[in-house]
Amino acid sequence: MASPLSEADLAAGARLMARLDAFAAFTDEPGRLTRLFLSDAHRRAAAAFIAWCGEAGLAARIDAAGNVVARFEGKRKGAPALMLGSHIDTVRDAGRYDGNYGALAALAVVETLRAGGERLDHAIEIVAFGDEEGVRFRTTLTGSRALAGAYLEEALDQRDASGVAMRDALRAFGGDPDKAGSIRADTVAAFVEAHIEQGPVLEAEGLPLGVVTAINGATRLEVGVDGMAGHAGATPMKLRRDALTAAAEMALAIEARARLETDLVATVGRLEIWPGATNVIPGHAQFSIDLRAPDDERRAAALADIKARIDAIAAARGARASLAKTHEANAFVCDPRIVAGLTRVVEELGVSPRLLPSGAGHDTMILGGLCPAGMLFVRCKGGISHNPLESITVEDCAFGLAALTRFVRDFQIT
Amino acid sequence: MASPLSEADLAAGARLMARLDAFAAFTDEPGRLTRLFLSDAHRRAAAAFIAWCGEAGLAARIDAAGNVVARFEGKRKGAPALMLGSHIDTVRDAGRYDGNYGALAALAVVETLRAGGERLDHAIEIVAFGDEEGVRFRTTLTGSRALAGAYLEEALDQRDASGVAMRDALRAFGGDPDKAGSIRADTVAAFVEAHIEQGPVLEAEGLPLGVVTAINGATRLEVGVDGMAGHAGATPMKLRRDALTAAAEMALAIEARARLETDLVATVGRLEIWPGATNVIPGHAQFSIDLRAPDDERRAAALADIKARIDAIAAARGARASLAKTHEANAFVCDPRIVAGLTRVVEELGVSPRLLPSGAGHDTMILGGLCPAGMLFVRCKGGISHNPLESITVEDCAFGLAALTRFVRDFQIT
Repeated sequence: MASPLSEADLAAGARLMARLDAFAAFTDEPGRLTRLFLSDAHRRAAAAFIAWCGEAGLAARIDAAGNVVARFEGKRKGAPALMLGSHIDTVRDAGRYDGNYGALAALAVVETLRAGGERLDHAIEIVAFGDEEGVRFRTTLTGSRALAGAYLEEALDQRDASGVAMRDALRAFGGDPDKAGSIRADTVAAFVEAHIEQGPVLEAEGLPLGVVTAINGATRLEVGVDGMAGHAGATPMKLRRDALTAAAEMALAIEARARLETDLVATVGRLEIWPGATNVIPGHAQFSIDLRAPDDERRAAALADIKARIDAIAAARGARASLAKTHEANAFVCDPRIVAGLTRVVEELGVSPRLLPSGAGHDTMILGGLCPAGMLFVRCKGGISHNPLESITVEDCAFGLAALTRFVRDFQIT
Repeated sequence: MASPLSEADLAAGARLMARLDAFAAFTDEPGRLTRLFLSDAHRRAAAAFIAWCGEAGLAARIDAAGNVVARFEGKRKGAPALMLGSHIDTVRDAGRYDGNYGALAALAVVETLRAGGERLDHAIEIVAFGDEEGVRFRTTLTGSRALAGAYLEEALDQRDASGVAMRDALRAFGGDPDKAGSIRADTVAAFVEAHIEQGPVLEAEGLPLGVVTAINGATRLEVGVDGMAGHAGATPMKLRRDALTAAAEMALAIEARARLETDLVATVGRLEIWPGATNVIPGHAQFSIDLRAPDDERRAAALADIKARIDAIAAARGARASLAKTHEANAFVCDPRIVAGLTRVVEELGVSPRLLPSGAGHDTMILGGLCPAGMLFVRCKGGISHNPLESITVEDCAFGLAALTRFVRDFQIT
């Protein structure tokens, strides 16, 4: 089957893929990709990004918060900008596409426009955020927070595992901790981030691209279950208050509740039991709940149902359950015009547009506090990310770039 | 409500209780009771036991396998003996009744008979086994195995955590590793062990005493469940192969199967999941199954049902389950004449006789290979054992001793 992409689109995709491969060489650990915020590898990666921008005629620079930024003027100098980009920091032992795809695709869009001599009514700003994964310091998303005018000054006092303060690392990197709090990007009209899906939906449905409708809101809970430990041989079933089977019933109830609604997900990712011996009935269990939904009201309703089920299961089993909320973040709803615009260009590429929420957090939700914002997802193999097995095809790479390029051309400042 | 026990019974019970308290002083660790096989505390405890036997006119001694043994002759010297006893080693941080109760009750029976000038048609042999808990060496029950003529010679080569061989420790203790394999107690006509229940049945039913029908057979399995890890936010419920919820469903199926039959118990005591992060769907789970029943055929049938359910649950969830048997022991059925005799004396004390299986293993099941054998259970608080909170009342202590004394008087060599 011939690709619906043009030869030029495929060639641009192949160039982007090659650049992603080259960019993966910037690592703090030999043999695997680890590029933490403000590290030496980050500095080298930023320098390469700036050099590539220079080859494309753009004067890129490191801003006060450690982002790499560049501007491609439109027909009229100083016009409002469509900002494109993603992050170039990684987790430890990372894949090469998470974040990097969107940052390098932004540059590739400008390269395509420039190669064709195209100037648009709006400017394009390219950004390569440095602090999305939150691995080195306890805070995260400081780069996008700075651009959104919501910088966390206290983040500068965070220290990494070696005792280095973010303030000092930022200064050494080329940023300016004294000015990071005042670089709000007021000339930006909209922000669009291309990113690998990090989930299995597009692969399961045989589609290269997805349009993100919302970034899921999330609630995390820690649940403790107190039953009664006992001798596994000497305690009849009817006299047991087994904390593990109570927790098991709760985990299944959580799963069953999440299954009732599309796009709502709930996960018990950790479960520990005490005392944890083959011949002892568990007396205590503790587990986590991670509940996410693209809609805060539906998430709240599911949470209430889950809490009620946990209490009912505990009561029926003579156990006691205690719940503590450890995290809560509201959903970010992507801008409807951006969703519509991305949907249209995906259709123009002959691809069925799949609208879906993002389960993971992204810089987009921060930029959404500044301007209309949205995301384009690219299919990845097996839904795998944060892992060296992260993989996309060169054709999907080209699909994402072609869709983003068309979206940028069509974009209108309102 | 007045006790159905006589003043003499209550006084004998109080003396036994005081002796159990005194005996708890023999420990290897200050502040808590830890008395491992052939340790210094075990040696001092054995010496005290021998001294108390001496006060009762019995020439007690340490046998080749490290048991303390004593003989109270009947009317006719050399008559076949009824053997009474239990073990005097403990777990670490133990309670004071597990094992010790039965060993000291055996001595107390003889003290009562001797105080009354009673001689019986049969002899009484008292035994205080030294190796039931299996804490110090990997083998266990070597004392009862020796008396049953089933000594494990290879046990002598076992070394403890400090590198001390059982052979050397046994010699230092006063045993004889060269003869331990040939001390089969051929003159013993029957064996009866009094022991705390270590379970909650008698307490739940308001009964001081239980007559053991069988020592449960046991099967232990290790189950691995392979699902697929994934992003907790980005993976829709319908695309998941969650190893934890699969394991949870299996644990509930195991519980439900065990609940179908009285006296059959099944426990998932350990469960571990990987990777075990709040925001990652578990890709692998591993758990233990401990299945016990007083009847080997019923245990086998339950095991087959559980295996089938595990396979069906795994298949329905797109997961893969693997089972490995790690332990198997057949049930020991107590001698019907001993069960009947103990039932009769319990009734004579005005107590409703509760027949129940033992979920834990005991020296009785080893002696059962030599002669008819059976057990009497004494109620303990909360079913707790192997714990300093282990507790019995002085009245229950007296009930057990009174029942055992009556059983011994009534016993007839056939």
